[in-house]
Amino acid sequence: MMRGAEDRGVPAAAADLVAQLREEVCDLHAELPRNDLVVWTAGNVSARVPGYELLVIKPSGVSYDELTPEAMVVTDLEGRLVEGERAPSSDTAAHAYVYKHLPDVNGVVHTHSTYATAWAARGEPIPCVLTMMGDEFGGEVPVGPFALIGDDSIGRGIVETLRHHRSPAVLMQNHGPFTIGRSARAAVKAAVLCEEVARTVHIARQLGEPIPIPQSDIDSLYDRYQNVYGQR
Amino acid sequence: MMRGAEDRGVPAAAADLVAQLREEVCDLHAELPRNDLVVWTAGNVSARVPGYELLVIKPSGVSYDELTPEAMVVTDLEGRLVEGERAPSSDTAAHAYVYKHLPDVNGVVHTHSTYATAWAARGEPIPCVLTMMGDEFGGEVPVGPFALIGDDSIGRGIVETLRHHRSPAVLMQNHGPFTIGRSARAAVKAAVLCEEVARTVHIARQLGEPIPIPQSDIDSLYDRYQNVYGQR
Amino acid sequence: MMRGAEDRGVPAAAADLVAQLREEVCDLHAELPRNDLVVWTAGNVSARVPGYELLVIKPSGVSYDELTPEAMVVTDLEGRLVEGERAPSSDTAAHAYVYKHLPDVNGVVHTHSTYATAWAARGEPIPCVLTMMGDEFGGEVPVGPFALIGDDSIGRGIVETLRHHRSPAVLMQNHGPFTIGRSARAAVKAAVLCEEVARTVHIARQLGEPIPIPQSDIDSLYDRYQNVYGQR
Amino acid sequence: MMRGAEDRGVPAAAADLVAQLREEVCDLHAELPRNDLVVWTAGNVSARVPGYELLVIKPSGVSYDELTPEAMVVTDLEGRLVEGERAPSSDTAAHAYVYKHLPDVNGVVHTHSTYATAWAARGEPIPCVLTMMGDEFGGEVPVGPFALIGDDSIGRGIVETLRHHRSPAVLMQNHGPFTIGRSARAAVKAAVLCEEVARTVHIARQLGEPIPIPQSDIDSLYDRYQNVYGQR
Repeated sequence: MMRGAEDRGVPAAAADLVAQLREEVCDLHAELPRNDLVVWTAGNVSARVPGYELLVIKPSGVSYDELTPEAMVVTDLEGRLVEGERAPSSDTAAHAYVYKHLPDVNGVVHTHSTYATAWAARGEPIPCVLTMMGDEFGGEVPVGPFALIGDDSIGRGIVETLRHHRSPAVLMQNHGPFTIGRSARAAVKAAVLCEEVARTVHIARQLGEPIPIPQSDIDSLYDRYQNVYGQR
Repeated sequence: MMRGAEDRGVPAAAADLVAQLREEVCDLHAELPRNDLVVWTAGNVSARVPGYELLVIKPSGVSYDELTPEAMVVTDLEGRLVEGERAPSSDTAAHAYVYKHLPDVNGVVHTHSTYATAWAARGEPIPCVLTMMGDEFGGEVPVGPFALIGDDSIGRGIVETLRHHRSPAVLMQNHGPFTIGRSARAAVKAAVLCEEVARTVHIARQLGEPIPIPQSDIDSLYDRYQNVYGQR
Repeated sequence: MMRGAEDRGVPAAAADLVAQLREEVCDLHAELPRNDLVVWTAGNVSARVPGYELLVIKPSGVSYDELTPEAMVVTDLEGRLVEGERAPSSDTAAHAYVYKHLPDVNGVVHTHSTYATAWAARGEPIPCVLTMMGDEFGGEVPVGPFALIGDDSIGRGIVETLRHHRSPAVLMQNHGPFTIGRSARAAVKAAVLCEEVARTVHIARQLGEPIPIPQSDIDSLYDRYQNVYGQR
Repeated sequence: MMRGAEDRGVPAAAADLVAQLREEVCDLHAELPRNDLVVWTAGNVSARVPGYELLVIKPSGVSYDELTPEAMVVTDLEGRLVEGERAPSSDTAAHAYVYKHLPDVNGVVHTHSTYATAWAARGEPIPCVLTMMGDEFGGEVPVGPFALIGDDSIGRGIVETLRHHRSPAVLMQNHGPFTIGRSARAAVKAAVLCEEVARTVHIARQLGEPIPIPQSDIDSLYDRYQNVYGQR
């Protein structure tokens, strides 16, 4: 699908924006190995080019050490190459589908981070038993359907699952987590915290049952964190 | 509560002391990621300004890489900003409550370190089955109540739990560990050892029951370590 | 066996090729500690010298920090030293046997990576329950026989097991993984992914049963990944 | 016991040897954090000064970053300070006892490495189910008695346990591993491999029973490794 696409170029008006996003997306990829979310080349970050039907993403099969802003590629929202010398990540179609159907999302991250993927292999959502989960996810981290790469099914599974949840993370069954955010950085943060809560709740469950948090307390945590936390 | 506070400034006589504590607290924050106690921005260290109703703490939502002595903030013991350009950590009220009610404590640390948080999610104290625990904790690591952020409840839960234990660490239910010390460095050490014993005892229990240490031996270990160990 | 061998030298025509492979094999050894696949000196990478009955491999008992291209050794396909100042890795006979019997293989890696070795200790293949496994291994990661070092038995166990599988990795019982590839780099990638899937499936199984992936879907994943993924 | 000791100085003839061992022991301490065997200051390496009733060891309660060859201390085989500005490690009496009673031992290491300590907390030896264990340990890693610090009991427990085993490692109950070697470097290697096999066998046992290795095969592995492996 991506192969036949001709290189139609980035509009001149978007050039500065794209240059800046190439830099940002390149920098954010360094967070994936740094936070132990990926091995080899198995994970990617993208950013929407706001105001354009474009996204910036990692090229396929390139190691994190070799990534430079120039190596990043630009595609349209069908996943077709628009600018760049290499083939886009093989997960581009899924990223593109998300941008097309969730207009508030400006960043998408996909990894195979170990503990999140372990929950995904069992098709089991991560229950909300940590205040950190209430803060960031506002409830459980849900599971999306099993889907093969190659058409819209992964993108559709992400969008349909996340539409019904506060969570910015979905565990695609037998596959791994996808996370979304208002910025690429927010999606990376969600990917980091998704793995951390997947790991902590796994470990808690190994020796017994974690204590549930009442829904009203989860609601308070989520509301406060989304509206008060951090610098304004 | 912190928002409306006016900046009343640090007394001139405390300026040198505060400058030194800004440096110390900044350096100690580097120990959190270095010892794998935190992901993203989820942990903080504070120090009491001895002789003043003040504390030095991390600003909210800032990454560990960006921290400088200047970025640290000073608050009073109600958690209100006294000096600094950023909002104090959202956990400041809990730190402040501890300093107000435990006069011997000069340092407080809060993390969501994985194994300690897993015990906290089950609301289960860590039993004292390691000589290292006898040394540092003098018994089990206790659990504190579930408490929502936003008022005194976290601080109160910490103080009420630790008053009845030798342990400098408390596992706040569904939340994570808080540790205290005679210095900020001692509180950081307690945070590091709390995670280590949480992890080791977890792993020991996965394949059977650890052998208990008799209380009299725990007492000997604790007494010797508190009075003899290290350089004088 | 290796001891009595005289140094017959590398043919002049192969000198450049060997120099290049010494560099490549040396660089690839750095991936082993970097990906947490080895402790101390317990792992090795080799490359076939294409067109010659020779291979380049790590010397025995040397730490990863001290490795240089010059320190690498060249042996024939009986594992006898041909060029180099040190004794070849004690696993050389196994590598050599693989090159002799699997003509498409140009790289071999051996580690004792923790999770893969744990499956090997139970003599249990890793079931294919992750899309990443379908991609890279095309099915389960199989177990090879228990074999003592010192003669052909390890090499024979590797070859006989991998002949019947798509997997480039075999878990030698009670011992650890061996991986093969069309290049030494591909064999290192297989070693990294073998440990990652060993770890993820282990963790998934700790809290229940992973959902199996239907064979036809595994076939699709494998076919696409081997033919489409990455840069061409 | 160590406190009252007068500083009697190192014999002039041993000065060069001691200077060299200060450097070696200092360098080897860097392997402890590097191999994840210690947190904070909780581990130490010593070397016998051959031909003298002396040993070189880490000072007490000093962090690994601050260690220099000059900071190391020299004690006699009663653990009394002979040269150095700081108090010797609180484990010095145990190291000294080992040198006094096992004349072939020239290096001793003590850590609280996580997985080895977890086996020690249950008082359970690590069964020999990995070829790597056959090579290095020649059988199981045994457990030593529970012993309090402060007199000979830890040293005695180490010596009495290791006298009956090939293993250079003993798991002191509820405490952690001690390892010995013909050199300090060999004892560090044993500490690294002890943690690795403790971890691998733990993980193997989490999902079932590892396959035992027949004693005759363990004997072959041990014999070959002790006599053939590495550079001569």
